[in-house]
Parts: sequence; structure tokens; C-alpha cells
Amino acid sequence: MWVPLSLRKLIETLKKLPGIGERSAERIAFHLLKRPDELESLINVLEDAKESLTFCSICHVITDADPCPICTDPTRDSDVVCVVERPQDVFLIEKSGFYHGKYHVLGGVISPLHGVSPDDLYIDDLVERIKKEGIKEVILALSPTIEGDTTSIYIKEKLKGMDVKITRIARGLPTGIDLSFSDALTLKEAIQGRREL
Amino acid sequence: MWVPLSLRKLIETLKKLPGIGERSAERIAFHLLKRPDELESLINVLEDAKESLTFCSICHVITDADPCPICTDPTRDSDVVCVVERPQDVFLIEKSGFYHGKYHVLGGVISPLHGVSPDDLYIDDLVERIKKEGIKEVILALSPTIEGDTTSIYIKEKLKGMDVKITRIARGLPTGIDLSFSDALTLKEAIQGRREL
Repeated sequence: MWVPLSLRKLIETLKKLPGIGERSAERIAFHLLKRPDELESLINVLEDAKESLTFCSICHVITDADPCPICTDPTRDSDVVCVVERPQDVFLIEKSGFYHGKYHVLGGVISPLHGVSPDDLYIDDLVERIKKEGIKEVILALSPTIEGDTTSIYIKEKLKGMDVKITRIARGLPTGIDLSFSDALTLKEAIQGRREL
Repeated sequence: MWVPLSLRKLIETLKKLPGIGERSAERIAFHLLKRPDELESLINVLEDAKESLTFCSICHVITDADPCPICTDPTRDSDVVCVVERPQDVFLIEKSGFYHGKYHVLGGVISPLHGVSPDDLYIDDLVERIKKEGIKEVILALSPTIEGDTTSIYIKEKLKGMDVKITRIARGLPTGIDLSFSDALTLKEAIQGRREL
């Protein structure tokens, strides 16, 4: 079959993106080729992202200034650091707008299955920050999965003996979800974590 | 919420692609930012597509050479032209490998609902080609939809009085599909279009 090489390479590259299969890659390629303006602007934003985005050398979030605006914001509470897995978790928490402390992105969670050991994560780096910045509370905001829990426990062990409070975000029923949709483990955690009204 | 501008623009632009929602756009953006090599190669293939791909001035398929390799191939049957809606339909038919005539891409189908009139399509252009190239058969390979059928009928009217055979691709059951999955209209077309064994 004859297909122009540039088109074939474009489809192959798009196919490697998460959630994009062969059909979607083809649809996106033809969509862009029919719209030179959109193709041009996609190239521009990708170039721009490549040029201007980096990781904050303190908290490891994606940023266009290093250190990032959160790390350098003097109005934010520097006593508290919220530990998350990925940069996008920072944006997610920022979106809700109620948290005013600092962040620390681990860059993943411990997962022997996927070959991720504690050394691959910014954990030692977190220990350093706590010492240097005089952080008083570490909020562990990792996913409630086996990997997330393992990582939380590992960090707790790492911080043993240090003068820092370690908390974990609450588990329970998500707001707006009917009780009947909840699984047994979540219900158990919700009941154990009950609070007086 | 603070999110770097370049990141926000990247997500917004990705969201405009077909089949990409907010969540997918975010996933793709973070995927690329974590992998500078992939980001670089995506920019390169997009640049390359922008620079080297164009539409064939004869059949209107996407090509890296104008006229395209099919239009200039002397071994292909120039008596037959297969009329399709989009460039990708050409690649689809080429993939099956059994057709050896020429093509003509209309660039769409007549659709008053979407504001597509015959003047927006390469129909007059097709008439010119038939005259100039001495084409003997026009195979209409449009989708079996109301718009596709309307376009086929319009083209048939346009070619009235010209010395050219007009055919339409067969309708019936797709190979490998159980009879019970077929709808009544397809079954009707399949029975009407029956062939002697």
C-alpha cells in the first residue's frame, strides 16, 4: 500500500501517545492535515512547552520558572508540605483552592512490579527539605492503593525520630456518592475515620 | 489555580483534536513533558507533515509529491476512476490491494445540514477529468448514508449524456458477520443484490 512516508510517521508517532490507538491516530492526522492553522498552532504550543517548561528543583512540579511560583510564594504556609505522586496532583489540589502550604512531588510511588525503588523517587530529597526548611507537618496525599500505602509507610519510617508530624489524607465516601455504590473496604475506612458532628 | 501558561495552552490545544477530552489532553501533555525525546519527535513529525504533505492537484489525495504516485503510475488502469469522500478512503482501498484504477477524492459529501453544497466538492473537477482523461468507468465508493447516496445521485445526474459507465460499490453483509447482527435494510440490499453461485 502506498501512503506518504511523512503521513505514516505522523500516525505512528501519534499512536504512541497514551489512550491513542490506530484509528484515533489516523483521525487526528487527517484532521490536522485538513486544517493547516491547527497543525501550526499544535506545533507552536509543543515547541513552547518544550522551551519553557521544566521541573522545579525544590518541589519537582512542572513549572515555567525555577523555583516554581508556589515554592517562592512568601504568603504560603511553609510549615506544611503536601507529598504527592505526580506534578498533575499539585494542579488538582491547587484547583480546589483550599490548601495553602507547600508541595513535594515524589515522581512516582514504590512499585517493585514496575521496577520503581525508593531511590528512583525524591524521598531523600524530602528528608533534606524537612531538615533545611524546618517543615512541621508532612501530609501524605498518595493514592489509596497498595503502592501508595507502601510508599507512605516507607516515608513514615524514613522520618522516624525527626521532629515532624506525619498525616495521611482521609479515606471515606466521596461526596455525592450513594452509600450503596461504596465497597466494603471504603465503608470500613469511613466508619473507622468517623468524626463527631 | 496556578498552572504554567505553556502547559495550559498545550492542554487546550490538545483538547481540540478529535476524540480528545480534557482528561486525555492532560494525560498526553504530562506524558510528553515527562519524555522530552517523545515530545521532540512529535514536533519533528508534525513539522515534517506540514512541510512535505500536500493535496494532489489531480485526484486530491494527500501526497508528498504532486501529482501523486497513483496519478502518475503508468501501470495503473486509467480507464477507471474510483470516487471517494476523503483522502483516507484512498489509503483504505489501497490497503486491500486489489484495485488498480485511479482515484478521485471529492473532499466531502453533499450535506445541506452541514452547509456542504456540490460547489464545495470536486465534482466539476471530476467531470473535467472524465472528458480530458477519457475515463470509461466511474465507481462511486461513498458511504451508504443519506448524504453519500444524495451525492452519488447528484454525480450520476451530472454525468448524464456522457459516454461513461457509472457503478456503485455493492451493499450487503460484511464478511464474517453473523446474519442475526444484520439490520433489515442491509438484509434487503443483500437479497436484492444477490449473485448466482
